[in-house]
Amino acid sequence: MKYDAKAIEEMIEAYLPEETGHQKTVLAAMNYAVKAGGKRLRPMMLRLCYEMFAKEPQEALVRPFMAAMEMIHTYSLVHDDLPAMDNDALRRGLPTVHVKFGEDMAILAGDALLNFAFETACQGFAVKPGDANVEKAFAVLAKKAGIYGMVGGQVLDVERAGLPMDEDQLAFIYENKTGALIAAACMCGAYLAGADDAVVAQLEEAAYAVGFAFQVQDDILDLVGDEQLLGKPLHSDDKNHKVTYVTLHGMDAAKQYVEEMSEKAIRILENIKAWDEGAKADMIALVKSLINRDH
Amino acid sequence: MKYDAKAIEEMIEAYLPEETGHQKTVLAAMNYAVKAGGKRLRPMMLRLCYEMFAKEPQEALVRPFMAAMEMIHTYSLVHDDLPAMDNDALRRGLPTVHVKFGEDMAILAGDALLNFAFETACQGFAVKPGDANVEKAFAVLAKKAGIYGMVGGQVLDVERAGLPMDEDQLAFIYENKTGALIAAACMCGAYLAGADDAVVAQLEEAAYAVGFAFQVQDDILDLVGDEQLLGKPLHSDDKNHKVTYVTLHGMDAAKQYVEEMSEKAIRILENIKAWDEGAKADMIALVKSLINRDH
Repeated sequence: MKYDAKAIEEMIEAYLPEETGHQKTVLAAMNYAVKAGGKRLRPMMLRLCYEMFAKEPQEALVRPFMAAMEMIHTYSLVHDDLPAMDNDALRRGLPTVHVKFGEDMAILAGDALLNFAFETACQGFAVKPGDANVEKAFAVLAKKAGIYGMVGGQVLDVERAGLPMDEDQLAFIYENKTGALIAAACMCGAYLAGADDAVVAQLEEAAYAVGFAFQVQDDILDLVGDEQLLGKPLHSDDKNHKVTYVTLHGMDAAKQYVEEMSEKAIRILENIKAWDEGAKADMIALVKSLINRDH
Repeated sequence: MKYDAKAIEEMIEAYLPEETGHQKTVLAAMNYAVKAGGKRLRPMMLRLCYEMFAKEPQEALVRPFMAAMEMIHTYSLVHDDLPAMDNDALRRGLPTVHVKFGEDMAILAGDALLNFAFETACQGFAVKPGDANVEKAFAVLAKKAGIYGMVGGQVLDVERAGLPMDEDQLAFIYENKTGALIAAACMCGAYLAGADDAVVAQLEEAAYAVGFAFQVQDDILDLVGDEQLLGKPLHSDDKNHKVTYVTLHGMDAAKQYVEEMSEKAIRILENIKAWDEGAKADMIALVKSLINRDH
């Protein structure tokens, strides 16, 4: 693998706001949330999909979108953690934003991060003004992050918390809450590199398969993972009476599903003709590592 | 005046989401918030500034941006009203979103509206793909709505609630919380119509003057307005120990300032050469009506 989480972090750090001016409390809260760590999976995928097709890579084009992707993921976590939502006091071992900065500032920091994501992605327009492909990347980002994507999945997840769910509802949550932003990452990267709609559609299909595999693997790890490695207690889904793929279909079926979905994603990726086959190999390796992960 | 609030509402209604699917609770909450009424000032200004410069007006280009503008204004109100923020139970005589749909759904409805605003504005890219001016409109919208615009103003307003403030802090709040989105409306309209940067800069200056006049007139009406017409009790600023232009400078100076700012805005508008002078006259009439309003 060419990049690790640290390398990706360094690429997006320059796009975080300076903590200065009358609004600095929220600027600090935004940065605190983004810098708290994580796999940096979405910006990494965006970058690899960009490299797969970019004949002349432009850092000034791809990096703002990488940063935007992570800002959107981060805002969703900040709002998720709020007392009126999951009411979580810790994330990745650190106090959540509302614990550290207050609930009002956490709401505003989330709003600000979502907005700043689009603002940051707009830098792509300045690099390639009047480029319809950059516009397509933008439109994909907006759609997949919103009510017909990530937010939509979050809505059902919150509404059904602790209640029974059928397969259709669970699939909707996995597809939207988890899959949509992973799809956006892959599609944006390819569009920015000038890939055509047909290739982007293939990447979209692969990305949703990755999303499903990733989420079901999460469900599995919540039952059989290692608390030390995960950095959080096991059996949280049980405790919250949460319906998961495992509770609906059992552990064996869940493991098989993860396998199937990851194989599907890899098969699609292998069949795509990339300009940079090394980036494609990295993308496939990344998918494999997600499925075989222990945290 | 060619348009009233009702006419503007009808133009943006088609861009509201259908209340269907697994996420329909929040779709309903989004529509409830947008349909609750209001002056529709921002989309109206966007439209008039568009008409001022559009030689061949395209409804499919300007209307999505009008809708986006109102969605952003509305999301800010939904989050403003939350218990952790202003904790308001009523807005325009109706239960606020969190009272009607729950706090979690209100947070998500605000997030969804902000995101959907950008998603809706992306429709402009499909109408005029690869148009650098549409991209500029988009970038202005994103910047003025965010941490260096509306959200930034909101941050300081929330932080200083009930506390003393100096002139500089108050001006920052007025400029950003109120002025920035009014500026975005005027600038977006002009950019969409193909106006050049110099004209847009003049409109920006006029719009900020309108924003200041509008906000100080609000402060005045809170003291000497008519409760029936305003639809809310007087002296709410006093009650909340809120620093306003009136508390800092007195009523006479406030009235003079409103006059000066509106005259400044009108002077700038009069000096701009518009393609459609009728739209410009309407824009000037709108500014005058805001300053002379009793509610």
